[in-house]
Amino acid sequence: MHPADFDPLSDFPDPSAGLAMDDILRVGGSRATAAQDAIACEQAVALEYNGIAHAALLASPLHLHELALGFSYTEGIVRSPADVLDIDVESAPDGLVVRLRIVNARLHALKLRRRTLAGSTSCGLCGVQSLAQIRRDLPPLAAPRRPWAIGAVQSALDQLRRRQPLHNLTGATHAAAWAEPDGRLAWTYEDVGRHNALDKLIGRLLREPVDPGLGFVVISSRASFEMVQKAHAAGIRALVAVSAPTTLAVRLAREAPMMLAGFARDGRCTVYSRPDYLDLDPEESRP
Amino acid sequence: MHPADFDPLSDFPDPSAGLAMDDILRVGGSRATAAQDAIACEQAVALEYNGIAHAALLASPLHLHELALGFSYTEGIVRSPADVLDIDVESAPDGLVVRLRIVNARLHALKLRRRTLAGSTSCGLCGVQSLAQIRRDLPPLAAPRRPWAIGAVQSALDQLRRRQPLHNLTGATHAAAWAEPDGRLAWTYEDVGRHNALDKLIGRLLREPVDPGLGFVVISSRASFEMVQKAHAAGIRALVAVSAPTTLAVRLAREAPMMLAGFARDGRCTVYSRPDYLDLDPEESRP
Repeated sequence: MHPADFDPLSDFPDPSAGLAMDDILRVGGSRATAAQDAIACEQAVALEYNGIAHAALLASPLHLHELALGFSYTEGIVRSPADVLDIDVESAPDGLVVRLRIVNARLHALKLRRRTLAGSTSCGLCGVQSLAQIRRDLPPLAAPRRPWAIGAVQSALDQLRRRQPLHNLTGATHAAAWAEPDGRLAWTYEDVGRHNALDKLIGRLLREPVDPGLGFVVISSRASFEMVQKAHAAGIRALVAVSAPTTLAVRLAREAPMMLAGFARDGRCTVYSRPDYLDLDPEESRP
Repeated sequence: MHPADFDPLSDFPDPSAGLAMDDILRVGGSRATAAQDAIACEQAVALEYNGIAHAALLASPLHLHELALGFSYTEGIVRSPADVLDIDVESAPDGLVVRLRIVNARLHALKLRRRTLAGSTSCGLCGVQSLAQIRRDLPPLAAPRRPWAIGAVQSALDQLRRRQPLHNLTGATHAAAWAEPDGRLAWTYEDVGRHNALDKLIGRLLREPVDPGLGFVVISSRASFEMVQKAHAAGIRALVAVSAPTTLAVRLAREAPMMLAGFARDGRCTVYSRPDYLDLDPEESRP
């Protein structure tokens, strides 16, 4: 990937923080040329809640406050941004440690959950219970205020391509963006992990005066179970993916209910769930 | 994706087991057409060792024996296929349960590890230790018997595209394949998760009389930290990825040491680590 592809339109403050230049060898046929190229940073990020280590992610070392808040919310550890009292990021020899301080009620809930898990696993948790833990019990989503014009969806996708400076430089990252009802992208986040990109976006949405029932989310990646579940947890009513969905993602989107579109590129998309949330009238497509 | 793209050349026995047909709506501009399309199956797969629930993955419900063996090996739970006495797959309401029976020595090691983890987390595991757990302490890899001809790498990549029936039908899966020294692909595995595809391949390699120092692995996805670490654990000396690597993947590959190539497509690739493991002489490229 070449620095010339960088697009200053993005709201990404400093993409160079998410990449490193390194010596590489370009091979074409039997010819090899030594060069320098941009490689996307990947770092281990440990999340601690009031001193208790809970999870470790592999992520782009950018926007870690948004990542920590979004992850905590979509995983059900906190129920609102107010539950998080403080977020502090520290460097460690093997990665980064994000130390969150959360309110006592949520800490007790987390400890209880962890103790149950630890207890069950050491005495033989049956598979079914373990599987059931994957799926969160989330309240159904209300319908959006009004359908989204298909033109707004196409417009959001056109902008997404220009708002991925880290991907344009490294080819290794995914993006998640929030689109206003007319399709204008408000915020875009990139990460080497597609779940992290979505968690970062959700962390930002939680801090903005945004009604999640009005706009929609576009992602540069595939739509898997976890992407739909995280979106559902954040109250998102429509998820537009550039690549393919899976059966579990489609099922979850129909149950949420949420509009789920995939293969959204080149002026087309495939709608898997709630097509009635889209307005296909071209007259309506012009905001 | 269309069934016409299906390529019977693949060694994939029944791709239809990994997908489901469903009603969708194709939208192009403001026109919408109802149709049926193939969607890649994604299922929750819980892994149990001697009755102890250990991990739950989201995976394509195919080749679960290979997945269970490969995961157990690359995660260090077992040290050889002989440590696994039995693998049994059962359907559960929320997914699949893979019940492994492993030898007592490895079960004790697993219990000890789980108890340490549980104990540490409830009394405040420090972030650094938690981060350190991500990286496994693996022995260095010996050099390959002889360098791989660049023509063999290109040949393996050409075959990989034709050996992904599930991807050709659904667009939602990644593949990992084992290439013989001359580039011929021996086995290819697909999965909605790229780590799972690699674990399935490694599970197969463990059961075949294959010297991991002779051939190489090609993957249709990006090369992240976990992909390189799993390959290292399996003794693989060269990893060729169709898409981009990350900084952590490059660092791990150099330390292994392992040949790591990325952006391997259209007759080109970028080499990030141990280019001396490749023979760029075109005369040598013809097996």
